[in-house]
Amino acid sequence: MAFVNENYLKLAAGYFFPEITRRVAAFSSERPDLASQIIRCGIGDVTEPLPPTAVQAMQAANEELANRATFKGYGPGTGYDSVRRAIAQGDFRSRGIDVSDDEIFLSDGSKGDCGNILEILGAGNRIAVTDPVYPTYVDQNVMFGNSGPAMPGGAYEGIVYLPCTEANGFLADIPSQTSTPPDVVYLCSPNNPTGTVMDRARVEAWVAYARAHRTLLFWDAAYEAYNRDPGAPRSIFEIPGARDCAIEFRSFSKSGGFTGVRCGYTVLPKSVMAYTRAGEAVALHGLWTRRWNTRSNGVSYAVQRGAEALYTESGRRETAALVAFYLENARILRDGCRALGWKTWGGENAPYVWCRTPRGEDSWTCFDTLLREARVVTTPGAGFGRCGEGYFRISAFNSRANVEEVVRRLGTM
Amino acid sequence: MAFVNENYLKLAAGYFFPEITRRVAAFSSERPDLASQIIRCGIGDVTEPLPPTAVQAMQAANEELANRATFKGYGPGTGYDSVRRAIAQGDFRSRGIDVSDDEIFLSDGSKGDCGNILEILGAGNRIAVTDPVYPTYVDQNVMFGNSGPAMPGGAYEGIVYLPCTEANGFLADIPSQTSTPPDVVYLCSPNNPTGTVMDRARVEAWVAYARAHRTLLFWDAAYEAYNRDPGAPRSIFEIPGARDCAIEFRSFSKSGGFTGVRCGYTVLPKSVMAYTRAGEAVALHGLWTRRWNTRSNGVSYAVQRGAEALYTESGRRETAALVAFYLENARILRDGCRALGWKTWGGENAPYVWCRTPRGEDSWTCFDTLLREARVVTTPGAGFGRCGEGYFRISAFNSRANVEEVVRRLGTM
Repeated sequence: MAFVNENYLKLAAGYFFPEITRRVAAFSSERPDLASQIIRCGIGDVTEPLPPTAVQAMQAANEELANRATFKGYGPGTGYDSVRRAIAQGDFRSRGIDVSDDEIFLSDGSKGDCGNILEILGAGNRIAVTDPVYPTYVDQNVMFGNSGPAMPGGAYEGIVYLPCTEANGFLADIPSQTSTPPDVVYLCSPNNPTGTVMDRARVEAWVAYARAHRTLLFWDAAYEAYNRDPGAPRSIFEIPGARDCAIEFRSFSKSGGFTGVRCGYTVLPKSVMAYTRAGEAVALHGLWTRRWNTRSNGVSYAVQRGAEALYTESGRRETAALVAFYLENARILRDGCRALGWKTWGGENAPYVWCRTPRGEDSWTCFDTLLREARVVTTPGAGFGRCGEGYFRISAFNSRANVEEVVRRLGTM
Repeated sequence: MAFVNENYLKLAAGYFFPEITRRVAAFSSERPDLASQIIRCGIGDVTEPLPPTAVQAMQAANEELANRATFKGYGPGTGYDSVRRAIAQGDFRSRGIDVSDDEIFLSDGSKGDCGNILEILGAGNRIAVTDPVYPTYVDQNVMFGNSGPAMPGGAYEGIVYLPCTEANGFLADIPSQTSTPPDVVYLCSPNNPTGTVMDRARVEAWVAYARAHRTLLFWDAAYEAYNRDPGAPRSIFEIPGARDCAIEFRSFSKSGGFTGVRCGYTVLPKSVMAYTRAGEAVALHGLWTRRWNTRSNGVSYAVQRGAEALYTESGRRETAALVAFYLENARILRDGCRALGWKTWGGENAPYVWCRTPRGEDSWTCFDTLLREARVVTTPGAGFGRCGEGYFRISAFNSRANVEEVVRRLGTM
């Protein structure tokens, strides 16, 4: 008799994005005359075309596959050497950060790797996340058995939630020295959903904490391209000592517009250790390499070539223009909200603006009001955790015309 | 302190393909004059260009991504509806097999899914594999904790090995009614590495066994396109009752030449159940859907379009020609070996020829002889398991000229 993974049965009703879709559909069928006016600033999905340099590289790669002399079959499970080199050089060594080519692991996106990484860790690790948080971190840990059951309110027993509130500027405090240290902490900067960015001193404090407690830091840098604050690290490996305790997740989704193309990478330094129950240190790099070679034949060849092309001169220029475009959207949205007297965070070094609900109403009430009165879809903060209640997220991933229209409509509410 | 997954530490020295690479490199540096003559019939990787229809579809998809009006961002985690429909219709319903669109789950290859599927199963399942076997099944189960330590000889405690020998024609016998039934059985037909094919009566017997014991059958059909035996099922879902007990893994790697493109799919019927420890039945379909939506944003858009194109009239014609080409290679190799008096299996409905070593020598000795005397790389049977000792595999994935040269050289040994 085959046994099911009962951890899946702990999962609460589901990802809250389907609930957003349901409410938008209900409004559309109730008011078909207004349905075409709806502007979606909910899910953080890019809208602008791919950088031409990436498209050309993918087309050229497909041409290679169309010819016997240049055909490519199975690639390395961890990515082609030239792509790993372009990344390690372009994102790290050129900025003075010590990362070797074989510490770069190509993947089909960082969402997957935030869960895949749990495969090389043992059962019984104590996992900490911020609150509010990107829900995938939590759900993946529940599925892997790193939590107890769901509690009323949606949080899970056994997961450590680090509150992010107005009081701490929506940046998690380092756990007190008297509390049981978590074994793993997920950190995301620039943050999804709050758009806040950790400064260097704070990241240094996390690294010091992690080293002291042999805690692993999972540093989600999916939005690093949006961080233009010279005082805030774009990579955790800018911090001395991070190579002993941190794993960084990167994505081309929001920099190169690859949400449909699917490519990201994980940086796992050879010096990062986890421990057996007997206390023996094991380098995770070898396990992660083995994981990829056993589970995968690597990312699609043309996709790898497309990602590599983002590191050429024209690729960089086009990527920078794309990021600048969305950042200007974010500025417009942020300034628009502030002009209405709304309290906001983020939107400066991030593509998300985090707003307090204007009348102190709860997240879903505010969501419904914005949908019905302004035909604007946002993301209710409560969907990201208990501390997100009373806030909502606006995504800057949209056309300029739509972003300007959103601001206009909010002003007439 | 972060804990490591200690199951990884049970893994034996490694995949045996690196050992093949090492020996080939050693010979090449020892005899640089002969290195260019080496013909690789080891790893089962395709060599011929992609079907033009698939290339055109991928190019057109990239053009869509290059334009704002047709841009595609995040896709569904389980694949685009149109692609799932093309597969369910083209591979199943058109052949009278009951599979619905939403029972098709797109992936970046079946190798991954043979392990991913373990995520939705609980700990403590008793896993059975054939011997010889595609080593990935075993390694993935070891990594997931479904085995004890490695034993001398390379097998793992706790894994049930079903011997495949000359006596049973290299087709596993159904376990006896007196032995403890496994909870999961991996079956592969046409088989890798032996090239053997199960007939309908045998597959029916497996389905009956699985239903009687609530055992899950993992049916790896990566090579089904090579099966032209009308008496042998290409899909396990041709067998009544299989929808209650079987999950099928399919790949475009060997049919459409997608080893570098990366696409496959898994068929998981809604009626397949696994059980809680309390004995409650849980449909795996919902868990698998949740797994994909939480872990992934789906397969690369252009790749999905490429796979879909294989189901068009021209796509089918080109795929059929590709498969026919490799099957003719297999026939040439098989006939060549038989003409030398060697005993062979497979090579008729499969791209692999399985040979007894000519002089009764062990697999690696034979491997070295073929490498040194004929400059032909094969795969030693011992790498696939204890019962593979004394045999070797020749892959038909090569150019016609190389295949004919291999036969010529073997004849002169």
